[in-house]
Amino acid sequence: MADKTDQVMELAKRRGFLWPSFEVYGGAAGFYDYGPLGATMKKRFEDLWRHVFVKTEHTPMAEIFCPRVTPEPVLVASGHVGEFTDLLVTCLACKAPTRADHLVTAAGYKGNAGALKAPDIDAQLAALKPKCPSCAKAAGFTPAVKQNLMNATEIGPGSGRVGYLRPETAQGIFTDFPLLFRHFRERLPFGVVQLGGSNRNEISPRQGMLRLREFSMMEAEVFYDPGKKTHPRFSEVASRTATFVPNADEKDHHLTFGQAVASGMVANEALAYWLARTQEFLLAAGMDPKRLHFRQHLKDEMAHYAADCWDAEFHSDRYGWVECVGIADRGSYDLTQHAKHSGKDGKLNPEFTRVIAATPGIAFTATVPVPAKPFFPTLKQDARAAEAAMWEGSAYAQEAARRGLDTAKWAERNERYLITEKEVRREPATAPLTVQANGKDIIVPASAYEIATLDVTVQGKRILPCVIEPSFGVDRILYALWEHGLETGEKNGEAYTRLKLSPKVAPIQVAILPLTNKDGLPAKAEEIEWTLRAAGFLTDNDDSGSIGRRYARQDEVGTPFCVTVDNDTLKDQAVTVRNRDTGAQDRIAVRGLAEHFRAVFG
Amino acid sequence: MADKTDQVMELAKRRGFLWPSFEVYGGAAGFYDYGPLGATMKKRFEDLWRHVFVKTEHTPMAEIFCPRVTPEPVLVASGHVGEFTDLLVTCLACKAPTRADHLVTAAGYKGNAGALKAPDIDAQLAALKPKCPSCAKAAGFTPAVKQNLMNATEIGPGSGRVGYLRPETAQGIFTDFPLLFRHFRERLPFGVVQLGGSNRNEISPRQGMLRLREFSMMEAEVFYDPGKKTHPRFSEVASRTATFVPNADEKDHHLTFGQAVASGMVANEALAYWLARTQEFLLAAGMDPKRLHFRQHLKDEMAHYAADCWDAEFHSDRYGWVECVGIADRGSYDLTQHAKHSGKDGKLNPEFTRVIAATPGIAFTATVPVPAKPFFPTLKQDARAAEAAMWEGSAYAQEAARRGLDTAKWAERNERYLITEKEVRREPATAPLTVQANGKDIIVPASAYEIATLDVTVQGKRILPCVIEPSFGVDRILYALWEHGLETGEKNGEAYTRLKLSPKVAPIQVAILPLTNKDGLPAKAEEIEWTLRAAGFLTDNDDSGSIGRRYARQDEVGTPFCVTVDNDTLKDQAVTVRNRDTGAQDRIAVRGLAEHFRAVFG
Repeated sequence: MADKTDQVMELAKRRGFLWPSFEVYGGAAGFYDYGPLGATMKKRFEDLWRHVFVKTEHTPMAEIFCPRVTPEPVLVASGHVGEFTDLLVTCLACKAPTRADHLVTAAGYKGNAGALKAPDIDAQLAALKPKCPSCAKAAGFTPAVKQNLMNATEIGPGSGRVGYLRPETAQGIFTDFPLLFRHFRERLPFGVVQLGGSNRNEISPRQGMLRLREFSMMEAEVFYDPGKKTHPRFSEVASRTATFVPNADEKDHHLTFGQAVASGMVANEALAYWLARTQEFLLAAGMDPKRLHFRQHLKDEMAHYAADCWDAEFHSDRYGWVECVGIADRGSYDLTQHAKHSGKDGKLNPEFTRVIAATPGIAFTATVPVPAKPFFPTLKQDARAAEAAMWEGSAYAQEAARRGLDTAKWAERNERYLITEKEVRREPATAPLTVQANGKDIIVPASAYEIATLDVTVQGKRILPCVIEPSFGVDRILYALWEHGLETGEKNGEAYTRLKLSPKVAPIQVAILPLTNKDGLPAKAEEIEWTLRAAGFLTDNDDSGSIGRRYARQDEVGTPFCVTVDNDTLKDQAVTVRNRDTGAQDRIAVRGLAEHFRAVFG
Repeated sequence: MADKTDQVMELAKRRGFLWPSFEVYGGAAGFYDYGPLGATMKKRFEDLWRHVFVKTEHTPMAEIFCPRVTPEPVLVASGHVGEFTDLLVTCLACKAPTRADHLVTAAGYKGNAGALKAPDIDAQLAALKPKCPSCAKAAGFTPAVKQNLMNATEIGPGSGRVGYLRPETAQGIFTDFPLLFRHFRERLPFGVVQLGGSNRNEISPRQGMLRLREFSMMEAEVFYDPGKKTHPRFSEVASRTATFVPNADEKDHHLTFGQAVASGMVANEALAYWLARTQEFLLAAGMDPKRLHFRQHLKDEMAHYAADCWDAEFHSDRYGWVECVGIADRGSYDLTQHAKHSGKDGKLNPEFTRVIAATPGIAFTATVPVPAKPFFPTLKQDARAAEAAMWEGSAYAQEAARRGLDTAKWAERNERYLITEKEVRREPATAPLTVQANGKDIIVPASAYEIATLDVTVQGKRILPCVIEPSFGVDRILYALWEHGLETGEKNGEAYTRLKLSPKVAPIQVAILPLTNKDGLPAKAEEIEWTLRAAGFLTDNDDSGSIGRRYARQDEVGTPFCVTVDNDTLKDQAVTVRNRDTGAQDRIAVRGLAEHFRAVFG
């Protein structure tokens, strides 16, 4: 019997979500085309991601766009030329190449086969004697060899200059770091995202959409002062709960993000914040919360430079838990590598140096009591001295002193420390303040001063920023949304298929269905459709078959709402709006329809 | 002195529109990164294109998304493996490769050098004796050889299976045609678009953004019944004017699109319609109408299978007229090629055959008199015969008869001809109708019948659709928008730079500027910014430097509106909105600001 994956793929192909690429030429393993519904869903999905990770993110964020073809030196520096490999073995009978770690796992090896070295793989193969997945003979395999997984090409015909199709979008962000840092006025933190295609020349792709030779990614690289891996809005996400699977015990822990940081399970607040935003996005896109967890990389999985790394995994009926997002604290590894490799004989490329070695600001927020207008009259001749004393005793001054800053020499600060400040807010004081000045205690009444909060930036520290990277695999998540959304069953003796896509990513938002093909209903339906399209909605217009069959057709592709235009519409200027999930039918005035859907879709 | 191109590129680099890729590694000719402002502008530009070519286009349209890597057989069929070539010559002194047609053109050859064959190029080089662009010596060149311009790669490591990075996005649409045809319920016309990257491994890219090794395209393939290259909305664009440069005289003709079709200058109405939509899009994106024209391909430029082909060209101070869109009537060439090549020994692949050889519908619109409700009572016993006679004499029946259809056998039509009909509108009749029935003239009064307009589709004709292809080069058009938008000058003794980007593509729609850094203005500015961001606007928030300097900074990146938050804002809850182009300043209530900008941006 067809399992859920088969059902999903059959539906996806039949209705135009996903087609195997180049099928009329016999196809090519590991490549898929997104058809009309799939491409539209993919675009809405990517725009939703931009909404969460760029437009409504309080960290300053920007998007950039870099080429697919990348010269070899960049990928030498990133480690991909040396390390982006799988172990390959070849069947001694049929000569078919196979990925060695998958082979030993399928043959029953219980550990993390991806971490095995070539001699260990050879030993496992000798012990397990697996059959070749291509010819089904157990004729043995060649010794495992490292196979690089990048697609090579030539830059400039006949030039001999090697380039690769990028294996991830992140490297474009790292090589542009000096320019990006300047773009963000040399202040940390900031984040840069890139959405786009990448390639991985898989040895033998076999798992449908999970293992592609060309795929889409959405990556964010968020740069932090290594000493300040915090987020000002963490409190907004701290009480949300998730399932964490830490590497310490590999068991489920249902915790809030706040607890996960406080207990030390997640390395720092900034990392936990991005886990929470990842969860928020995946749920908004329609992933089933019960089939989503965060799994910490095992110790032998984690890169040596990573401070911490978690995968968001979704559960699939056929494939089990599948990684779809990696959220890693990569330290300063990437920037260090590029600084080293882009230089010659150990010297950094000047332009790169200028920024890496520049003086990124460190910002702190200080609270300062400042005189309100009636301050001077009240305190008379003590006013000036009291004011100076207030500055000296303020949280700002204490923070400055801790950093070796001389607050007394206020006027000189810009020259000496490149201090800049920005007032965030100003509030009335609630209690009198006692300061020592002119050799006595001076009581400054609450009415005579206010509390100002300043963002203060002090230049002068040399740091190499570190990066937290949430990296999303688009195709896998789209597959998850289809598998989690698919509902099949029987109702009143009739089989039905419903794809419960989130209204935020459904490729058709509203279908307009004229009840019959006469009495001017098709024309009315078309008029309504164009009103909705002009208002920016994605619509479909279906006039063939019974209304029940048309509802079923829309349910199958996840259309959240159907609008039925009937003979009463011509009289009462209203339509019936049917909700996919509840089946509820509401009569809505045509005049207010766009407004109604704007409110519904948010 | 720096020309406009230099000014554009300096500004683009400094402000984060465009950066040479991989610069820290010495760069790579023909590759650019879009920085934060450039990537955002590119995305808005592509979304605007979708709005014009998909969302508000009355032809049924869909978007698909296919991989970059394409197996060789697809590109053999399309002709790219054999014909996607330039002639290459190598300098005898320095061994640098150069594109031969560019070399002879630069040396003074006046014809279309791109059409010269290798021996003609060799003869021209012998006569013109140009210097090598790399070493500047006139040491002569090797004979010209054809150089394929595709980037090759391997599909599956060690497989020996050749793939190429696609040189255009169109082929994905053509290979999916059978699936797409079914998706559109086997009715013509329909259009399919694809946006994405393509590669062209240029021999020696030298013209900045005009000649890239990796570039973005937006392509539409609109499939027509070869006998019906019309557009139902042509009348809406027919009276718009444009400058046409036909190949007959290569001179400017200022005509309406209607005149261009009527005079036979543009081959057919559908092609002219897509020229008009192209113009509409380019002007909305901000191209200068005075620096845009449509040039017909010269006879030796046009592909042998093309029925007609026009380029939209923009004028550049440095480069002259530059092609940025090609709009071609490609006949049925592409589908024919894929049908031929995807088959084995001349037989078509079954799945492909099924659709290519299937029975695309031909639709016509017929006007039919139909009885209104009071029809029967009035005519009594003649009613039924009169009704039948009305059908027989209708425009519908005449049209059907012309196609050999038997309208009398109404009940059988679906089985015999697969006729389907859809009522478009119904109007009252304005005059009585005389029909012959029951052996006499029967007068049917106007009050007794109505005129219904039906879209009738008759299946049964075997055709191979032809295609009209508007194909847009994203990078070149973005460059044009920057060059056309750049305005430099002096005002009150101060130099200024203004980038007059269309509000529809500007990367920052609204900048929020707190007048000072105190009195709570930055907090108020932030609050306003977040309201606008939540409403979907792209914003910037700049608080450093004088207000004049900040206006200048926003003018330079094309921000259409600046919102200044001043001390009065805290009292009157209003802000000053400054218009980039007019300098006009309006006081607008904060509460209505999002609504105000929604109306302005449309």
